[in-house]
Amino acid sequence: METINIIIAGPRGRMGSEAVKLVTNTEHFKLAAVIDHKHDGMMLSDIAGFQAISNVPVYTDIEKCLQAVEADVLIDLTTPEVGMHHAKTALTYNVRPVVGTTGFSPEDLEELQQICDEKKLGCIIAPNFAIGAVLMMKFSQMAAKYFQDVEIIEMHHDQKLDAPSGSAVKTAEMISAVRESKQQGHPNEKETMTGARGADFNGMHIHSVRLPGLVAHQQVLFGADGQTLTIRHDSYHRGSFMSGVKVAVETVMKQNAFVYGLENILG
Amino acid sequence: METINIIIAGPRGRMGSEAVKLVTNTEHFKLAAVIDHKHDGMMLSDIAGFQAISNVPVYTDIEKCLQAVEADVLIDLTTPEVGMHHAKTALTYNVRPVVGTTGFSPEDLEELQQICDEKKLGCIIAPNFAIGAVLMMKFSQMAAKYFQDVEIIEMHHDQKLDAPSGSAVKTAEMISAVRESKQQGHPNEKETMTGARGADFNGMHIHSVRLPGLVAHQQVLFGADGQTLTIRHDSYHRGSFMSGVKVAVETVMKQNAFVYGLENILG
Amino acid sequence: METINIIIAGPRGRMGSEAVKLVTNTEHFKLAAVIDHKHDGMMLSDIAGFQAISNVPVYTDIEKCLQAVEADVLIDLTTPEVGMHHAKTALTYNVRPVVGTTGFSPEDLEELQQICDEKKLGCIIAPNFAIGAVLMMKFSQMAAKYFQDVEIIEMHHDQKLDAPSGSAVKTAEMISAVRESKQQGHPNEKETMTGARGADFNGMHIHSVRLPGLVAHQQVLFGADGQTLTIRHDSYHRGSFMSGVKVAVETVMKQNAFVYGLENILG
Amino acid sequence: METINIIIAGPRGRMGSEAVKLVTNTEHFKLAAVIDHKHDGMMLSDIAGFQAISNVPVYTDIEKCLQAVEADVLIDLTTPEVGMHHAKTALTYNVRPVVGTTGFSPEDLEELQQICDEKKLGCIIAPNFAIGAVLMMKFSQMAAKYFQDVEIIEMHHDQKLDAPSGSAVKTAEMISAVRESKQQGHPNEKETMTGARGADFNGMHIHSVRLPGLVAHQQVLFGADGQTLTIRHDSYHRGSFMSGVKVAVETVMKQNAFVYGLENILG
Repeated sequence: METINIIIAGPRGRMGSEAVKLVTNTEHFKLAAVIDHKHDGMMLSDIAGFQAISNVPVYTDIEKCLQAVEADVLIDLTTPEVGMHHAKTALTYNVRPVVGTTGFSPEDLEELQQICDEKKLGCIIAPNFAIGAVLMMKFSQMAAKYFQDVEIIEMHHDQKLDAPSGSAVKTAEMISAVRESKQQGHPNEKETMTGARGADFNGMHIHSVRLPGLVAHQQVLFGADGQTLTIRHDSYHRGSFMSGVKVAVETVMKQNAFVYGLENILG
Repeated sequence: METINIIIAGPRGRMGSEAVKLVTNTEHFKLAAVIDHKHDGMMLSDIAGFQAISNVPVYTDIEKCLQAVEADVLIDLTTPEVGMHHAKTALTYNVRPVVGTTGFSPEDLEELQQICDEKKLGCIIAPNFAIGAVLMMKFSQMAAKYFQDVEIIEMHHDQKLDAPSGSAVKTAEMISAVRESKQQGHPNEKETMTGARGADFNGMHIHSVRLPGLVAHQQVLFGADGQTLTIRHDSYHRGSFMSGVKVAVETVMKQNAFVYGLENILG
Repeated sequence: METINIIIAGPRGRMGSEAVKLVTNTEHFKLAAVIDHKHDGMMLSDIAGFQAISNVPVYTDIEKCLQAVEADVLIDLTTPEVGMHHAKTALTYNVRPVVGTTGFSPEDLEELQQICDEKKLGCIIAPNFAIGAVLMMKFSQMAAKYFQDVEIIEMHHDQKLDAPSGSAVKTAEMISAVRESKQQGHPNEKETMTGARGADFNGMHIHSVRLPGLVAHQQVLFGADGQTLTIRHDSYHRGSFMSGVKVAVETVMKQNAFVYGLENILG
Repeated sequence: METINIIIAGPRGRMGSEAVKLVTNTEHFKLAAVIDHKHDGMMLSDIAGFQAISNVPVYTDIEKCLQAVEADVLIDLTTPEVGMHHAKTALTYNVRPVVGTTGFSPEDLEELQQICDEKKLGCIIAPNFAIGAVLMMKFSQMAAKYFQDVEIIEMHHDQKLDAPSGSAVKTAEMISAVRESKQQGHPNEKETMTGARGADFNGMHIHSVRLPGLVAHQQVLFGADGQTLTIRHDSYHRGSFMSGVKVAVETVMKQNAFVYGLENILG
């Protein structure tokens, strides 16, 4: 495979440092430079935690970086504002952005799409890079066309404040987009204890389990005549988004258009 | 093993007909007679569904039956009122009752206990004969001494009217009897959709899933520092109480006292 | 929805009798006739088990049936030889076949395809109508593109003679068709007890569990960096193929070509 | 609750450093001193990783430590040889040992038992402190009295070299001690792919799954007439032994005899 030259913006963050590991450990990936809001002019090996990585310059300004370094892809794991600026600038220099931040406005997304169309360049914005979670949602949506009855059980550690989880709501929304509407359960069903049947989302039910020891887990259960189909994702630690970033980098090189959401490149 | 001679009361009921199968298919069990509220004086093989079972007389009156037939154990699968009369009469004739009906009053239970003590005879009354379900509850209670954090997920077919299930409530009660009280989840936890966190029972949470295809399933999840323990029972069809009846019949022969609840003979 | 008129061939078989139930219980389906190898000229209500179903004539000869009855779809649940004859004849009369038997030869399939192309008629041959099982396999194949590491655990009642199950082998074959080859597990892995790591299929591992109480269950587990994705199908009773037949009947009406395998119409 | 004064031997090891966290974070526990094979005479806060923990002296010699410090319990997480010496010495000073190492000889265990009996002091030696894992084994043994049919599925990350895992073998041994022997599966069962039915241990089957992403998981499945009972333990990170140490420390204070194995104090 041909080597892909990569710039990482936000290398010291939680996801960024995992991305540095991914890029430096993947044979056909090469880390060309990093963009950090400080440490301009230093080498990455001068920064604590990265001593072993040689020959990677640090830039604070993306324009200077793109002028100095030959790159194919920018992996941006910063913030929406910074990410938008980075993505637009990268496209100007014919570098394809892979951006892992949420919070882009519809206008931002449209602007990026237009630039990609004009320049015939790939660009991937993905709020969730955990391939397993993205496939769970995608498969759930596909299954919902054939199984009208579905319940979602999401399970997280007990330090989580909100219930249900964002992923559970996203899954329910994706299912609702294709599922023939139905109020599930028996019409005369009664809760003898309030809340037993969980949250109601368009007739589907969502249950949130919180226990110490758990990390981040979700199962989507479909039921019909004598059978159930269950799709489950277990996330055990934060490295779980790395394979998604890898697929995005490899895919963005073959594309000449804008894509929003990892589910749209997983086929 | 020595043969155990058995009378079954209620042979045509859903559980009774399974009990007939169990007794006639178990090598060291012998079906001596059945008690039915009709068909007095006939043979069991005269009744539809039992043609293959030879030499088993049918009685309507338990006293007549006990006088005519030599028996060790009475399996009663009728109703609480009839069951109470049957159990008392059986003990008078030194026949040990195994009774699978719910709804006995505390006075009934006490009266039976006294008769057993006087006659030094075993008698087992069990509202639930599914060994797996009873062990699930017993183990959950044992685990709750060490894991304060627990959630119950019960899952049934969508024709079930009440939520949570009786077994889930019974499990929660058994756990509460030993668990150091605690309001689980984060103190600042917020439901963004009502009911997501399920029903609250003394700070524990119970979730009821209803889907076509499911039969009767329950899991009890315990969580602590970096680990979870899950105890799960799946009931696929009604024969699931048979092994419990078998254990009860074998155990009642070795006992000389009254026992309420299968969990107290499973060790 | 417009009513679909249906002929069922093989109404007294295990699957056929479920299909009769499905068609008579679905609002926009109408059972126009049945084809049985005996009972010619009788009404379905004359046959034991079908007394409640009125106005459905029984034919032994498919040609006579198709001449006498107006039908849109033939559901054939007989045998491969009979099914082939039925399907070809039905197409001649512009009736679309939905056939649930395995064992067609490649020549049979090609012949049917040609007839469909000429007549621009839909025809669906499906060896497996359990939608959940078919989706499990389809999703597993899709996931295998992104997760190279996969193990299959299939679980059945202990009366099953062969291990692994046909579905597990089919799943492994479908995965192998897309998965980048890999010998899974640690290169220095050692079995201290023979067989612990299961069967090896192109570097994947398959495990067969056999226990009384179980019915038919399979899970496919994918693992990667800090996450697992699990796709599980549980089949509790034989009615589980009915929703697949329903989808096939509805789909075949909209198609003008031949389809082999339910996975190719689920999308 | 009265404060328990604790000495930890081996504070810099993987388990030892977790034990330091446990003791310093538990309200009624007080860390009185640590025993390390170096750093004699320093304070724990002088050692990297423990800067925040004040007033805890470090000793290299256990005798000097026990003379200088008032303690109730010694938590030893060193090696069998060192642990044996530590445990004997602690008992001499009326300090109760809680020891988390494997590899003690039967003679060692007997010697400790005798000292405990003479001095009427508690002492707990536990090869496995993960309460959930220990309960899983204990419950499995209890269930095996009623369910003769059992299969074990253990699942670990793919860096594990041996299959099956030590815990799976231990579980199988504990079950074998009470289970009526039986060759499971159908007598005419055939493996069409070698290894599909897993490893055979006295007629039970054990299956080892290895996937990246997994940590350490085991389920024990029992099956009978129409039901299954599943006991599952998931270990997500190494802190999972901490609650076992806590229970052992609290229990050893109430005991005046020797105990081997956490399962014997859980109950």
